[in-house]
Amino acid sequence: MIQITLPDGSVKPFEKNATPMDVAKSISEGFARNVISASFNGTTIETGTPLTTNGSLVLYTWNNDEGKKAFWHSSAHVLAQALEELYSGIKLTIGPAIENGFYYDVDFGEHTVSEKDFKTIEDKIIEIARGKHTFKMRALSKKEALSLYKDNPFKTELIENLEDGTITFCDHSTFTDLCRGGHIPDTGIIKAVKILSVAGAYWRGNEKNPQLTRVYGISFPKQKELTEYLNLLEEAKKRDHRKLGKELELFAFSKKVGQGLPLWLPKGAALRERLEDFLKKAQKKAGYEMVVTPHIGQKELYVTSGHYAKYGADSFQPIKTPKEDEEFLLKPMNCPHHCEIYNNSQWSYKDLPKRYAEFGTVYRYEQSGELHGLTRVRGFTQDDAHLFCMPEQLDQEFKNVIDLVLYVFGSLGFENFTAQVSVRDPENPDKYIGDVENWEKAEQAIINAAKDKGLDFVIVEGEAAFYGPKLDFMVKDALGRKWQLGTIQVDYNLPERFDLTYKGSDNELHRPVMIHRAPFGSIERFIAILLEHTAGNFPLWLMPKQAIILSISEKYEKYAEKVLNLLENNEIRALVDNRNETIGKKIREAEMQKYPYMIIIGDNEESENKISVRQHGGEDLGLISIETFSEVIKSEISKTLKAF
Amino acid sequence: MIQITLPDGSVKPFEKNATPMDVAKSISEGFARNVISASFNGTTIETGTPLTTNGSLVLYTWNNDEGKKAFWHSSAHVLAQALEELYSGIKLTIGPAIENGFYYDVDFGEHTVSEKDFKTIEDKIIEIARGKHTFKMRALSKKEALSLYKDNPFKTELIENLEDGTITFCDHSTFTDLCRGGHIPDTGIIKAVKILSVAGAYWRGNEKNPQLTRVYGISFPKQKELTEYLNLLEEAKKRDHRKLGKELELFAFSKKVGQGLPLWLPKGAALRERLEDFLKKAQKKAGYEMVVTPHIGQKELYVTSGHYAKYGADSFQPIKTPKEDEEFLLKPMNCPHHCEIYNNSQWSYKDLPKRYAEFGTVYRYEQSGELHGLTRVRGFTQDDAHLFCMPEQLDQEFKNVIDLVLYVFGSLGFENFTAQVSVRDPENPDKYIGDVENWEKAEQAIINAAKDKGLDFVIVEGEAAFYGPKLDFMVKDALGRKWQLGTIQVDYNLPERFDLTYKGSDNELHRPVMIHRAPFGSIERFIAILLEHTAGNFPLWLMPKQAIILSISEKYEKYAEKVLNLLENNEIRALVDNRNETIGKKIREAEMQKYPYMIIIGDNEESENKISVRQHGGEDLGLISIETFSEVIKSEISKTLKAF
Repeated sequence: MIQITLPDGSVKPFEKNATPMDVAKSISEGFARNVISASFNGTTIETGTPLTTNGSLVLYTWNNDEGKKAFWHSSAHVLAQALEELYSGIKLTIGPAIENGFYYDVDFGEHTVSEKDFKTIEDKIIEIARGKHTFKMRALSKKEALSLYKDNPFKTELIENLEDGTITFCDHSTFTDLCRGGHIPDTGIIKAVKILSVAGAYWRGNEKNPQLTRVYGISFPKQKELTEYLNLLEEAKKRDHRKLGKELELFAFSKKVGQGLPLWLPKGAALRERLEDFLKKAQKKAGYEMVVTPHIGQKELYVTSGHYAKYGADSFQPIKTPKEDEEFLLKPMNCPHHCEIYNNSQWSYKDLPKRYAEFGTVYRYEQSGELHGLTRVRGFTQDDAHLFCMPEQLDQEFKNVIDLVLYVFGSLGFENFTAQVSVRDPENPDKYIGDVENWEKAEQAIINAAKDKGLDFVIVEGEAAFYGPKLDFMVKDALGRKWQLGTIQVDYNLPERFDLTYKGSDNELHRPVMIHRAPFGSIERFIAILLEHTAGNFPLWLMPKQAIILSISEKYEKYAEKVLNLLENNEIRALVDNRNETIGKKIREAEMQKYPYMIIIGDNEESENKISVRQHGGEDLGLISIETFSEVIKSEISKTLKAF
Repeated sequence: MIQITLPDGSVKPFEKNATPMDVAKSISEGFARNVISASFNGTTIETGTPLTTNGSLVLYTWNNDEGKKAFWHSSAHVLAQALEELYSGIKLTIGPAIENGFYYDVDFGEHTVSEKDFKTIEDKIIEIARGKHTFKMRALSKKEALSLYKDNPFKTELIENLEDGTITFCDHSTFTDLCRGGHIPDTGIIKAVKILSVAGAYWRGNEKNPQLTRVYGISFPKQKELTEYLNLLEEAKKRDHRKLGKELELFAFSKKVGQGLPLWLPKGAALRERLEDFLKKAQKKAGYEMVVTPHIGQKELYVTSGHYAKYGADSFQPIKTPKEDEEFLLKPMNCPHHCEIYNNSQWSYKDLPKRYAEFGTVYRYEQSGELHGLTRVRGFTQDDAHLFCMPEQLDQEFKNVIDLVLYVFGSLGFENFTAQVSVRDPENPDKYIGDVENWEKAEQAIINAAKDKGLDFVIVEGEAAFYGPKLDFMVKDALGRKWQLGTIQVDYNLPERFDLTYKGSDNELHRPVMIHRAPFGSIERFIAILLEHTAGNFPLWLMPKQAIILSISEKYEKYAEKVLNLLENNEIRALVDNRNETIGKKIREAEMQKYPYMIIIGDNEESENKISVRQHGGEDLGLISIETFSEVIKSEISKTLKAF
């Protein structure tokens, strides 16, 4: 008999060689039907693998990330089998599960695969899947493994790097693949599959190696789930911030200026400014002071801060000068500059905390292949701030920063979020700068604050920055996708490196603690996420134009201008559509363009000095005065944008 | 007889060999007493030089720049003589007149000269001057000249580079110097002299050459003028923006961040923001749109714009990346980026003008020895804008820009200014990019606009930028010093280089004209000048704190906070002095710190819910309500800050 411990802590005895599926059935037959993968003592195994020792068992269904991973990993095997059956003489390389689906990198030899072949591949996969073939692991010696792949230089290379005695294969149906395990019980539960795309990929990601074809796919246990996923993809495509950014004339890229360096067009620059003004106002109330620092600094500055040692080689290279020995770096972070501002005066305990904020544009090199719209760029503006406080102020300051971050999320319609406390990897203490005691204090301060604010949070080991632990917020957008937004980091390290001090009440010099924080993270990335979250229907206070004035005919041009001016005086952003078109067409177009309010003016409106107002996709507010309309807007805005 | 043409156009006959002084005397004896220098056919000569041909003669007094130059150039001769008499064996090099005074670079050999010697030198100069020695030019052959300086390697080097037959010397008293001429009649009119400083200087400015001592001095025809000048220097020292910037906690420099890279402290950043907001508001009314662009661009961008060919070698060097061939440059100008924004859409004639504005921070390398506070930096923020218009819109746009610049000057208390139209140097047509016809149109457009706006302007040849002619404004500050502020430039060149187009009403593509403009020039330099102009007493709308609330005792703390809040609601920036000090001391200190308004609160004020107000250095406004005070402030602000 062996003793199996389950995640709820219960321990059950089983016969030796019982399988995870046996354990599942002992819980309930219904549950067992949904179990598709398992892990034993932290190692992924198959549901049919015999258990021979005492240990901890976790059973996974499609609803667990681990379950999905096994499902998609197994689907990659079936994809590979399908491709071999369809295209003779191809060479397989590797085929992992990814965040959404799986891929297989294949050397197709003389064949080419394109979108028109996707249906054939999908049909072949489903045909194989219906055979309900079980996945079975077996071990081979290195010699046997090599002989199996004598015509495949890729698999040969993989095997050559493995140690004899650790090499396993997985069989299902007539197909065999080099594999470390982690499969679903049988192919039969793969009910729906979609080949998403093909792309070029270099063997092992190195452009000096041969080029392969990467076939991306996704599979589901139910057809309905595939349909839902494809709808989501379609919706995501419509909301792609690169597409919306173009349509709404927010930003552009120029080959001449350079990849990954956004140019903010007038409407985008105005949007940025509204976001910045919103945060500035809240920050002012929270006792922050704005500062302005240059976008470069001497190389020495980053040697002092430690950033040069960490990032120097992989980032934009130093800027030399023609006549002197100085070298400068594009600033990758604002913190060293803010430390130097702090260091410009000798502060006393009465002066702390100092809270320096800056919309600081930083530059970090990314390979061109990694760039993506506004979410992965080479230059971006952080809504950065650094708080310098006494150790005994840290808890309270950290909590205040959480309040500010939650205020930002609330005002921008992100209701759904979780938090992650990132602490050290206990196995790799060398990765981190600074002493252990300080790290422990900082980690505890974050956990206390997160608890106190009632956040839904997890603690993840090994995810801390090299200079300190942090609290990151993950928001879920309208399509259910998760984005990392907003970060708060404690730092005991830079104050040491920059020798920051304050004079305590004991008249001695002490070391302040530093907090780095950025609720948006980067304005570029935040706007991208906001675009994809709202599909461009921003909260009313942020909308570029809150209302459009539609004149019944051109003869109301003057009254339209008067209304526009009055709205502007009431700080309502509007524009006039005075084209020679029917009012019906104007209304339809304005609806399409999603203006929150349509203001219709004609004879009646002009004679009564009023306006007729319709809400986008909603209520008809009738004939009202501009003052009333202004109150409507204010009240609507106050629903999302509250005072901090 | 010879015919002499005078500046008023009149032509008078004189005996051959008549001197400029003879001509002066023929005008009036009184005038002749003031004449100290002359130029004949554009060449500077002495007032005693015989005139032998027909030609144009200009006579200069102390009130002309040319007169001052001759005065100070002659004073440098006397300084050199004095030094030779006081320090044996020294070697003279060169000694020119400068903007304010003169200097002489001397190899003092074994001697050292310091501040304690200044009086002795001054006394010696005045002793020599009283001899009323006349300055007389004579020509020497190269051989004679070299033999005269056989012990002086510096003068020898100078002479070796001169052509035989063009070498002249000037004698006065017992002293002789290699000299091209341009002196006052005799030493007797040098009545007052001051040695200002000594500094190290390399021979011919090259640090590989021997180091010399530069002796700076200034001289005047009257003692009173020297006294006035020294007072001005004293006042300028008090108003030095570097000193005020420190006292007012506006900005700082950090060795670690780098020389010439200002860090804006909270109060300075707030000042910048007020200036930016002020300009943004006016620009919005004038139809500008804000954009945001990165601080770097690909090298190719500046090759296209021509900036790389012009500045590349002397500026910050290209930024390389670790894995790709791209090279980037710190942006020295915003224009290429704005051209690329323009190029992002195909505009029609109905869309023009497009007016893109940005507070764009640019970086230009300056040698460390050239850096000076905020007036000469390595990174600065231009209040930049680029207007793209049809050629037929240029005149009107240019005039509108002048209106904006004048509005800026008026709102900031610069009442005293002149303008300069900088056009091509007709002798060096190769210096300029672009075709002649376009240049002529652009120059004419600027001159028309300057005339139309009634500006006090001069046209200066050879001062145009390489890409186009421009209009620069020179303001005179409170100490009478001139500063170049505000520039407006027409550019027919970048639209060609970036292939900018618009679709005309004829449906064909046409080339727009571009205007570059920056009313402040650079925010850094503007703030420096404003500090020196106002000594920190900014216009009320710009003051960091407009009022200070002084409580009679600590027990009014709560009421003080209430008043502060009410003032903030009325957009009045104030602070509370609630220290446990006598009200007398608080008032004296607030007067010293130049707060525009002092608000005194005690029993009376609290019970009546009012405030007692005193103006800085002025009126007592008595016991008034906060509403009344708010009206006072608004009315005071509206005197300088009008609506645009």
